[in-house]
Amino acid sequence: MQESAVDVLIVGAGPAGLMCANALSRAGVRVRIVDKRASAIRAGHADGIHSRTVEIIQSYGLAQNLVDTSAHLHRAAFYKPGSAGGIERARRMKGFVSPNSRYSFTCTLHQGFIENTFISDMKTRGLAVDRPTIPTSIQVAACTEKGMANADGVDAHPVKVVLEHLDESQDTCPSEVVHAKFVLGADGAHSWVRKAMGIEMKGDVTDHIWGVVDIHPDTDYPDVRNFSIIQSNKGSALLIPRERDLLRLYIQLSHADLINPENGRVDKSLTSPQKIIDMAQEILKPYYIESTGDVEWWTVYAIGQRVAAKYCVDRRVFIAGDACHTHSPKAGQGMNASMLDSHNLAWKLTYVLRGWADLSLLDTYEVERRKFAVDLIEFEHKWASMIMEKGGSPGGDEKLYEMFESNADFLSGVGLCYQPSTIVNDRYQASAPGLVVGAYVPPHIFLRAADANPINFQDMHPADMRFKIVVFAGDIKDAKVAECIQTLAEQLDAPDSFLKRYGQGGWESVFDLICISASSKDGVDYTDFPKLFRKHWSKVYLDDTDMLGNLGGGGFARFGIDPEAGAIAVVRPDGHVGLVAPCDRMDAVEAYFGGFMRTNCTA
Amino acid sequence: MQESAVDVLIVGAGPAGLMCANALSRAGVRVRIVDKRASAIRAGHADGIHSRTVEIIQSYGLAQNLVDTSAHLHRAAFYKPGSAGGIERARRMKGFVSPNSRYSFTCTLHQGFIENTFISDMKTRGLAVDRPTIPTSIQVAACTEKGMANADGVDAHPVKVVLEHLDESQDTCPSEVVHAKFVLGADGAHSWVRKAMGIEMKGDVTDHIWGVVDIHPDTDYPDVRNFSIIQSNKGSALLIPRERDLLRLYIQLSHADLINPENGRVDKSLTSPQKIIDMAQEILKPYYIESTGDVEWWTVYAIGQRVAAKYCVDRRVFIAGDACHTHSPKAGQGMNASMLDSHNLAWKLTYVLRGWADLSLLDTYEVERRKFAVDLIEFEHKWASMIMEKGGSPGGDEKLYEMFESNADFLSGVGLCYQPSTIVNDRYQASAPGLVVGAYVPPHIFLRAADANPINFQDMHPADMRFKIVVFAGDIKDAKVAECIQTLAEQLDAPDSFLKRYGQGGWESVFDLICISASSKDGVDYTDFPKLFRKHWSKVYLDDTDMLGNLGGGGFARFGIDPEAGAIAVVRPDGHVGLVAPCDRMDAVEAYFGGFMRTNCTA
Repeated sequence: MQESAVDVLIVGAGPAGLMCANALSRAGVRVRIVDKRASAIRAGHADGIHSRTVEIIQSYGLAQNLVDTSAHLHRAAFYKPGSAGGIERARRMKGFVSPNSRYSFTCTLHQGFIENTFISDMKTRGLAVDRPTIPTSIQVAACTEKGMANADGVDAHPVKVVLEHLDESQDTCPSEVVHAKFVLGADGAHSWVRKAMGIEMKGDVTDHIWGVVDIHPDTDYPDVRNFSIIQSNKGSALLIPRERDLLRLYIQLSHADLINPENGRVDKSLTSPQKIIDMAQEILKPYYIESTGDVEWWTVYAIGQRVAAKYCVDRRVFIAGDACHTHSPKAGQGMNASMLDSHNLAWKLTYVLRGWADLSLLDTYEVERRKFAVDLIEFEHKWASMIMEKGGSPGGDEKLYEMFESNADFLSGVGLCYQPSTIVNDRYQASAPGLVVGAYVPPHIFLRAADANPINFQDMHPADMRFKIVVFAGDIKDAKVAECIQTLAEQLDAPDSFLKRYGQGGWESVFDLICISASSKDGVDYTDFPKLFRKHWSKVYLDDTDMLGNLGGGGFARFGIDPEAGAIAVVRPDGHVGLVAPCDRMDAVEAYFGGFMRTNCTA
Repeated sequence: MQESAVDVLIVGAGPAGLMCANALSRAGVRVRIVDKRASAIRAGHADGIHSRTVEIIQSYGLAQNLVDTSAHLHRAAFYKPGSAGGIERARRMKGFVSPNSRYSFTCTLHQGFIENTFISDMKTRGLAVDRPTIPTSIQVAACTEKGMANADGVDAHPVKVVLEHLDESQDTCPSEVVHAKFVLGADGAHSWVRKAMGIEMKGDVTDHIWGVVDIHPDTDYPDVRNFSIIQSNKGSALLIPRERDLLRLYIQLSHADLINPENGRVDKSLTSPQKIIDMAQEILKPYYIESTGDVEWWTVYAIGQRVAAKYCVDRRVFIAGDACHTHSPKAGQGMNASMLDSHNLAWKLTYVLRGWADLSLLDTYEVERRKFAVDLIEFEHKWASMIMEKGGSPGGDEKLYEMFESNADFLSGVGLCYQPSTIVNDRYQASAPGLVVGAYVPPHIFLRAADANPINFQDMHPADMRFKIVVFAGDIKDAKVAECIQTLAEQLDAPDSFLKRYGQGGWESVFDLICISASSKDGVDYTDFPKLFRKHWSKVYLDDTDMLGNLGGGGFARFGIDPEAGAIAVVRPDGHVGLVAPCDRMDAVEAYFGGFMRTNCTA
């Protein structure tokens, strides 16, 4: 059998697997990705990308096409049984959107488009999905040996996977052996990798059954272009307006109708898209709804709300996405959570593979992402049961609307905040209370000192695998502040500074240094700042408005930073704030990196 | 010789020619475009796209890549001779930007990128530039015959052009004859077409000589990323920051140094990029400036400020761009004016070719675009002489800054407004004083009724060759307004309405109907509006804020429209407002189209 070695083998080319493969390939990691499907999907499947996820996709420079092509949900409509028998609108409000989002909408379009965004980007670096291919065996060799579990073993390839190529028309050998340093199982709710590693799923064992159709509707339903939650006496439905005037209908189906009595499993052949549309028509009365042209995609599926007992085995085999957590579609979080899983993992794998960080850094993946999944499933459980109530309980409606409205940060992803750990240190949170340690960097406009371009704070944090060191300083026209900035530059430039000690092979490959000053644009030039802070002219920013006075300003106030005292923020390669500290606590920054970084490159 | 027929033959594939070729190919017009250069340009040449031009490129859906790739000028810096001998900064202010622009900056990048934007778009419809190819003869047959000069002759191909293919390695016949309905000469300042048609250039005969280099600078000049106008005792310079950290230097050179005494013409070999950079270094003292790496592009050119005596011969041969008007680079208008020329012409040619409009429509091209060129040259003449003064005259500096600041609308293109004509009727301007008849539609956010998406008014006016009929109506919850809207819908839908009479082969191919209501988003559905106003769910808008209250609202007030009375706006296919009228003056709308449209399709 053919044998080969690779840094990371990814099983499954859905959103979780592709986000990871693409991120790793950008970092120059040797990666392979295999998928059991013979071709990429072209319609249907998951379809909602919330605003925080769009921000993260934009950190890879890949959001524009998605934003341009998708439908944008700004509004949600709630319907309940009306007095005349049919449904009537109970409430309309903003959608899954937080005022703290950069994108004030949810993007909806079929999962294949999002996957293709990553596939196209990977392709520019020569990486393609190997398909149809499945793993047939996986062994983590000598996991119990000390060398494999710590950083000294980073060059070993302890995971042996046998792959089988399913396309018989190909000339390739049907089976091969891949020796991988790490394996990621992103192979869906029925994950082979998860099962092979003996990881259990925990949670709700009652599977709900959903019928889903993507249609081009003919309808007089007035909220057909808003996200709708419909509770009727005939059942409940979710409607999601989509790209190219498509409409997705989610209809909860009765268990009894769809179980094959012979084997007790869901049998798709017991229903049809027309039957699902007919049920939607019943629910939507007095409005009519019909499908024009072909149904673009449909399915029936049973899903429980479950989370994997662990996300990692022996620091070598990981799982992500639906392999870790399964959801009802009601809060539209599945694909978002999946991509964020592997966005969280990719930089950690890269740092360990480059010999820059200890293997122990990988433990934070499960800590951060499993906690989120548990919270999400708890939310969804509550949410789903409220929707199912059909407006039955007194005041139930109001509770539903209030829950939707008050959880905007959670639903849009803006609320995601990782707990304190080696890489999340909130000890000095008070130095910048508005820049929440553990959370993703918020959108805010600062002015680039050299050219007065208004630049979003998030765009200073591209997913380029570097830690961003953001120095917030006062007005450099103030002599005391200028001296302070000068001292800071000297400290950072000293041979024993963390920049130099952890900056393997040139600090600019590990760190990006950004200076944001409370100076006004009128009297200040970027050349007024120490050279260390302007390795490139674009690295100095001001907390001021743009030339027309429309954008920017108020950043120090928003982040709660005292311009006199200043602050230093350490932002992780995934855009989450790792640390904030007063400018005079460089020791805290040193200690932060000391907790997981390696000072020399022996790997 | 090979002979062929084509609707429009375009000579010259610069910004003017390509804008036209692309627009015509989108409209399905049979078009050919030839250029004498063997390949597209890859660096240098014109480099500034002002905000209104970006808006117009966006009306073709083509601005995003340009915006993402270009440098953005937000700020201008003025330098004058300082007391210490070198230069010192006199003033910094906003750049070529009007508060009324959608894009609050000028985009700078090399002309080839912009050309390639059109070339790539054309390619998707199978149209490529035929190169290197030149015309060697042009004849307008029987122009004096009545049939050729009026609409009955639209199917004739009266212009005979002989083309010569210069690439001898090609298998094609070296010469061919093309019979065209129309010819556009977009072949630059030395236009062959213009000369062949005997059109004179009028204006300043004193040619100024400019040295231009595109470099990657090493400098401590603090405004290197701002547009700079530098007046020093050693001469004047313009600095333009560009894409990929490039910097363009414009240095005015002495006539005497560059004239070859033997033939009296500018001789590029008498200077070099290094000599131009050396002169820049002299001007920029006390700052240093050097070029790192290779000079990306350079040239020396002599240019007068001139305008063609006419833009059109016999309604069959047109000229556009530098063929019509030449400028100094000081106001950075050349490429912008060129693209706007042919954007103005393209829809008129299309309407005549489709048999929808009289040939006389074409006369408005010269009327509208030549007036603009004359105004521009007048402005540039004044502007250039102010810059040349080197701060000499008392108060001259202040006048320069004030002129730059007070002409922001002109410089950004926002001020462009065509004079009254057959297609610009300002009789009822009072019904919507803020929607200026003759001007391009302004940016403003309205809320799409069906899905609460905030949509820019400009995006309701894509360059799709249709007239937009925009009905501004009051609050449809008001019974009187509702009745009024209903009446209007019935009038428009009547068999003898202008929609039907001029809507050749289905009114939706000629007209787009948009309704903007002063209703609030809370109580109104798009389905509340008459069906005629919602041929598609996206056609009904509200003058209200978005779901987060950040965008939109105040549109009626801004446009000066009384919600009680309402208004109808007719927007031309090029996005310029052709007419505004009170809702009850449908006769004015009828008369507008009656002035140039044909009621039946005999062509």
